[in-house]
Amino acid sequence: MSGTQNRPDPFDEGGADIHDEVSPRPVVTLLSDFGLDDHYVGVMKGVILAINPEVHIVDISHAIPPFDVAAGALVLASAYHYFPKGTIHVSVVDPGVGGDRRGLLAATENYYFIGPDNGSFTHIYGDPSFLWVRHLRTVEFFLEKVSSTFHGRDVFAPVAGHLSLGEPSGNFGPLIQDPVRLADARPEVGEDGSIQGEVVYVDHFGNLITNIDTAAFWEGESRAGTEEENLVPVIEACGKRIRGMSEFYGAVPPGEIGAQLNSWSRMEIFVPEGNAARELGAGKGLPVRVRFERAG
Amino acid sequence: MSGTQNRPDPFDEGGADIHDEVSPRPVVTLLSDFGLDDHYVGVMKGVILAINPEVHIVDISHAIPPFDVAAGALVLASAYHYFPKGTIHVSVVDPGVGGDRRGLLAATENYYFIGPDNGSFTHIYGDPSFLWVRHLRTVEFFLEKVSSTFHGRDVFAPVAGHLSLGEPSGNFGPLIQDPVRLADARPEVGEDGSIQGEVVYVDHFGNLITNIDTAAFWEGESRAGTEEENLVPVIEACGKRIRGMSEFYGAVPPGEIGAQLNSWSRMEIFVPEGNAARELGAGKGLPVRVRFERAG
Amino acid sequence: MSGTQNRPDPFDEGGADIHDEVSPRPVVTLLSDFGLDDHYVGVMKGVILAINPEVHIVDISHAIPPFDVAAGALVLASAYHYFPKGTIHVSVVDPGVGGDRRGLLAATENYYFIGPDNGSFTHIYGDPSFLWVRHLRTVEFFLEKVSSTFHGRDVFAPVAGHLSLGEPSGNFGPLIQDPVRLADARPEVGEDGSIQGEVVYVDHFGNLITNIDTAAFWEGESRAGTEEENLVPVIEACGKRIRGMSEFYGAVPPGEIGAQLNSWSRMEIFVPEGNAARELGAGKGLPVRVRFERAG
Repeated sequence: MSGTQNRPDPFDEGGADIHDEVSPRPVVTLLSDFGLDDHYVGVMKGVILAINPEVHIVDISHAIPPFDVAAGALVLASAYHYFPKGTIHVSVVDPGVGGDRRGLLAATENYYFIGPDNGSFTHIYGDPSFLWVRHLRTVEFFLEKVSSTFHGRDVFAPVAGHLSLGEPSGNFGPLIQDPVRLADARPEVGEDGSIQGEVVYVDHFGNLITNIDTAAFWEGESRAGTEEENLVPVIEACGKRIRGMSEFYGAVPPGEIGAQLNSWSRMEIFVPEGNAARELGAGKGLPVRVRFERAG
Repeated sequence: MSGTQNRPDPFDEGGADIHDEVSPRPVVTLLSDFGLDDHYVGVMKGVILAINPEVHIVDISHAIPPFDVAAGALVLASAYHYFPKGTIHVSVVDPGVGGDRRGLLAATENYYFIGPDNGSFTHIYGDPSFLWVRHLRTVEFFLEKVSSTFHGRDVFAPVAGHLSLGEPSGNFGPLIQDPVRLADARPEVGEDGSIQGEVVYVDHFGNLITNIDTAAFWEGESRAGTEEENLVPVIEACGKRIRGMSEFYGAVPPGEIGAQLNSWSRMEIFVPEGNAARELGAGKGLPVRVRFERAG
Repeated sequence: MSGTQNRPDPFDEGGADIHDEVSPRPVVTLLSDFGLDDHYVGVMKGVILAINPEVHIVDISHAIPPFDVAAGALVLASAYHYFPKGTIHVSVVDPGVGGDRRGLLAATENYYFIGPDNGSFTHIYGDPSFLWVRHLRTVEFFLEKVSSTFHGRDVFAPVAGHLSLGEPSGNFGPLIQDPVRLADARPEVGEDGSIQGEVVYVDHFGNLITNIDTAAFWEGESRAGTEEENLVPVIEACGKRIRGMSEFYGAVPPGEIGAQLNSWSRMEIFVPEGNAARELGAGKGLPVRVRFERAG
């Protein structure tokens, strides 16, 4: 199925490929809002393995809230760069399935991305190593019968299978310049360095993860005046004030509330050995404000 | 462990085998009501990998409602044919474990099936490519110590491991002719083409999946009179009337109710970007009626 | 990355290694309290596969109650010996992450164990084939940037990857003699053979699993007088009396309560085709008493 030598590339407009050497054990990841209760995810794996029995398939998450494209995009953005070079990331949060939204194949210098054109790859387009995005148009790489309700199985899984075999990406469809992007969800950083953000995700431990990433936090710190050595960040949320950022969960006494730059490089609000979302009655959309005050 | 050449097949009554050439990377799927919270599924995988380290193991679902053999049979029937030829499907919804129900190995032209004899394979016996079913009797393929409560680990997983190595299926036990079958759960199609069915499964999105499959729907349509060009199906459920079948979710305005032939080739009732089960307060057993009316 | 021949072992104090021959398809298992909703588990797998693309990764459970080290230790103890020789078990229930608790690599004659030093491996230290435990100190085997909140990804996953490649275990850190152990949670067996235990785990089916293991049960039986042939165990819990142990679930009529030595080699209380935890309103910590009475 890798017709590199004998077949002309019908869509070859110069989009570079990253798999000149195909790994003998390529990795395909799956991300969706399908849950694990039904057979939907298992069936996608069956379709991929029927095309390429040598792939490793890894689940990133299938518990994205149903139809929540922004949450899927966020989780993908937090996970993709931990995988081996050449990994093919398949992300299917797809409320528009069966309608006229396009299917996409995108690439950065190290990874491929396959899924619907609904903003799922917004953060990928912002990766400095982003290369190109194509419209999946070559139906010979889809299952023979494409349903109008399950493109994860009928379109995206088989495309991932064929790509993992070394099929040149140019064969899947033409380059496009206008993929759908989600509205900017970055926090506002004021002249005085204060940051106005919000909770964008709640994880399994009830940690409240905000849109205030490390870059925004540092920008706020810098505007507030880094020469001034005695500044302390004060985080305000839910009517509470958290003075100072923690280095790790255990640095805050059990039962109290802390804030830290977490393993996603985002500010999160937490209760050590507790559940901040439950204990504060808070969730997605909660406003979070950071100000920098003189210490002492 | 593949004694093909040197060992006589003790149960060779002519049941054909499908793995003349064993795949170097055979696929074993797992389906159960074990959930993923405990170590039960992981341990089954450990047992299989200890016998054959080269298999791919894929979960179809472990969230079958506890002891619900019919739901397990339905999910298996909707999933198995998407896997590569030679895949070994292990299905363990097994309320009778430890009692006198038999263990089975069944085969179609393309797949193997392993599990308890309680109707789990009812739909497999109806597959036109169904070949045979055997009673698992050769204890040398089980774990040395067989518990009376976990045959998934002690019987079915090791049998799958040995089968994946190319052990002739005839060695696992004798052919039988009387496996347990579930009572027929097909919908009734009336003389006038009206169809009386019911909801048999609710998926992760709250879609209400019925026992009205494509074949039953077409039979109804045909009896209602296909020459009559202006017929429209009307679906009645929960006191609601849905006029016409949708082609895809997005064809129905958000908040309204639609019906379509879904990716399982079954009629389902849905709320686009919503949850039909929750919004209608409906679930398994809900009666669903289809009639064909003149359009306009 | 396997410098066996050319590099001296900096921590070689004689801790024997079990992977003289590295399996071409080593198994790494993962156990945690991370849940499967977020990308945490998927990212750990990405890190491992980026180091060794040939491993099999198997989930044991990610539904350990958050921060419940004892539950994680129990599930690990019930699962690890079903995996192939040489399997690397990674267990991360880690409330102290980022603080001063150590990271560990332990070994029995057949398995490796990687995780935080908080008692997670208490049952491993009691395995007769236990060999040694090391303090993970060689930072060159960690990710370049180690966060203070996610050592599963930054420390334990990469150590597992490198170990699976055949890196001598002595290179990961020095042997220690004082790993943290959980307080003894064994039941009390009285002079008359009566056993006082408690429920330590509730599984997906609502079975109430106790700390009364087969050894404790047999000890009770023996003290009560094995020569006396007419003794019957009577199990008391929740104000109920269960007379006699069952051989399997189906031996008890639906709706009644039974007790048996289960597939974990532990006494459990169950309701056949029901949910004992729900129907008895019982859970972890429930006292369970066994006495041996004359039959008839």
